[in-house]
Amino acid sequence: MKAAGIVVEYNPFHNGHLHHAFQSRIESGADVLVAVMSGQFLQRGEPAFADKWARTEMALASGVDIVIELPYVYATAQASDFARGAIALLSAIGCESFCFGSEQGSIEPFLRTYGLLESKRAVYEQKIHEAVQTGISYPKALNEAYTSLTENGAGYADLKQPNNILGYHYIEAAKKMASPIRPLTIQRIAANYHDPIDKELTIASATGIRQAFFEGASMEEITDYMPEASINILKEFNRAHNGFGSWERFYPLLRYSILRERPSRLKEFAEVTEGIENLIYEAAKKEADVEGFISRVKSKRFTRTRVQRMMTHIYTGFTWEELRSFETPAYMRLLGMTAKGQQYLNQQKKNIGLPLISRAADLTDPMGKLDIHASAMYLLGMGVVDVKKEFTTPPRYFG
Amino acid sequence: MKAAGIVVEYNPFHNGHLHHAFQSRIESGADVLVAVMSGQFLQRGEPAFADKWARTEMALASGVDIVIELPYVYATAQASDFARGAIALLSAIGCESFCFGSEQGSIEPFLRTYGLLESKRAVYEQKIHEAVQTGISYPKALNEAYTSLTENGAGYADLKQPNNILGYHYIEAAKKMASPIRPLTIQRIAANYHDPIDKELTIASATGIRQAFFEGASMEEITDYMPEASINILKEFNRAHNGFGSWERFYPLLRYSILRERPSRLKEFAEVTEGIENLIYEAAKKEADVEGFISRVKSKRFTRTRVQRMMTHIYTGFTWEELRSFETPAYMRLLGMTAKGQQYLNQQKKNIGLPLISRAADLTDPMGKLDIHASAMYLLGMGVVDVKKEFTTPPRYFG
Repeated sequence: MKAAGIVVEYNPFHNGHLHHAFQSRIESGADVLVAVMSGQFLQRGEPAFADKWARTEMALASGVDIVIELPYVYATAQASDFARGAIALLSAIGCESFCFGSEQGSIEPFLRTYGLLESKRAVYEQKIHEAVQTGISYPKALNEAYTSLTENGAGYADLKQPNNILGYHYIEAAKKMASPIRPLTIQRIAANYHDPIDKELTIASATGIRQAFFEGASMEEITDYMPEASINILKEFNRAHNGFGSWERFYPLLRYSILRERPSRLKEFAEVTEGIENLIYEAAKKEADVEGFISRVKSKRFTRTRVQRMMTHIYTGFTWEELRSFETPAYMRLLGMTAKGQQYLNQQKKNIGLPLISRAADLTDPMGKLDIHASAMYLLGMGVVDVKKEFTTPPRYFG
Repeated sequence: MKAAGIVVEYNPFHNGHLHHAFQSRIESGADVLVAVMSGQFLQRGEPAFADKWARTEMALASGVDIVIELPYVYATAQASDFARGAIALLSAIGCESFCFGSEQGSIEPFLRTYGLLESKRAVYEQKIHEAVQTGISYPKALNEAYTSLTENGAGYADLKQPNNILGYHYIEAAKKMASPIRPLTIQRIAANYHDPIDKELTIASATGIRQAFFEGASMEEITDYMPEASINILKEFNRAHNGFGSWERFYPLLRYSILRERPSRLKEFAEVTEGIENLIYEAAKKEADVEGFISRVKSKRFTRTRVQRMMTHIYTGFTWEELRSFETPAYMRLLGMTAKGQQYLNQQKKNIGLPLISRAADLTDPMGKLDIHASAMYLLGMGVVDVKKEFTTPPRYFG
């Protein structure tokens, strides 16, 4: 059996993801589709809309065969680290290829870009450094450096597009770890990231869909944009949790944490660059509402995503110290599988490069302990009083 | 004008407190009654039933002329430190005497006890040390040592009684700081600390009264046990806060804090003796209810009060380090006054030994910063989103 990998958040799973899963299978010619998926906190520094078990169920119901959790240290990190963790896991589980959605839509520009940046690494980094010095955000600096290096040249990947950036980092990660995994890409269609639901499209962005849920759209209005299985799973999640995950919901606990820590300790938390701790503290004092808080903290230098990552680490209580010490994943946490996925795992058992963990209780790896902790923090934010759910929830199975 | 001092929590103010205030005035012959009162957290390690402003209003409405806040470092400490902070403040404001309620009811036994313990300090401490080694709690050890020293002798204060213990420490504090303040005591009447409301008595314990409120007793049922002003102030507090302060109410935030910190950091918080951090963490994991949590943590060695003090410091986020570094109060925070209290303060202005602070914004003293912080933490626990209330609330005035 041949496996292909994808890297996902499914926040929540919608028709765009269905398309990606379907096309990845076609492009790769694989029998089995493996998704490495973020856990309870996401790359943009947000608590997940639905927990990792619900999101795993959605994936298994719609074409994914195996779901592996991307550890917190990677899942909440900047693109290069995010990609490194994900590709390491897909390689370890024996995927022959991986397939990402991109605005670019073809793989050659990515390979060409990688070649260019590798050969001109020093110049590139110098240019980034200079751009950052002018006070702009890191992503903007990266982009300026890149544009000047390619001389706006065609044939290179357009790294102003968010999915292209991620794609580039996947390829970089694969090359750097000399993984035999073969990179593939498919064209991302429709809905830009921040589009609200557009009734004319059957693909809407995850952001738009979340928005619709938060605004109390009826499930019928959403039917056009998500597989029915996703809708049912979300309905159930909603019933059990009286809503969905969001910073709005988590803010009272976050705010209490920030005020409790005070500036002196705030700067110990990951991503809280020294100097911003007073701003964070004062913003939390003043703002009872998370949007007001973020508006006060974000700036040209610190993007919303960056601020949200700080919020995530303060919320979970992870310090620079704790997150700094990891290099590559040393385990693989199985969140769920289909019958076919199980068959693949049985067959591959001996070839899988990392211990495959099905139960939280078996997760003794220090990196895995962070995931268990992050999960308990998420549960508290959702108002789940049984924080041991992490230990009592077996991998989801879709027969 | 002559002032007498009392040390109070008023949690909440009831007929027993009215009696104490009234008798203190008679015993001392003073014109003005000054209360040093705990702020948002109390000596038994609990959030206050009503906030310090409401409790100040109750006091001013019922015979107290000036309310000074006992700083957090003393208010949440063991009896000897609690007493030291309180007596230092009463001395500094120029009280000629102070008057405490005691089971003993006369002052001579306390003075005799103080003389005995001072002259036999070394023996006494050795005996306490030995008793602690047997694994009993500190209060029990103290008592055993004391009993053996006095040979159960009459004429000494009975230090098995909680108010006698506090009284002893007031006297000890006054003597140690060579304050000219004159100690007085009145007999405490009726209601033991944990008695529920007894319909035959017009004095009920604060615990009993809180219990009645939590169980939703009608205000009419409580009328016999509290001044009408107290009832009205509590009614208003209840309306504004949708209930009262308690660990039950604060536990979700406390639990989140404990789980977020994990054992490695828990032991940094004040009163968390090394070794108990794992027990605290595991108890918080298992228990969604504060009583369950406390039951798991308390033991022969760690009394409920001791555990609740740990809870208080974890909740507010104060470390050993932060609370260790204070010796004596360096300011006096005015929470409220009557017209007569104001007259006394104007007259005494030049003689008052410490800066008198009326507005939180003027409180730059490090010890005072802790109070402001503790107050914000209390407000969050009560669900007050405007945590700057500390800065916008002027001293209460009763004309």
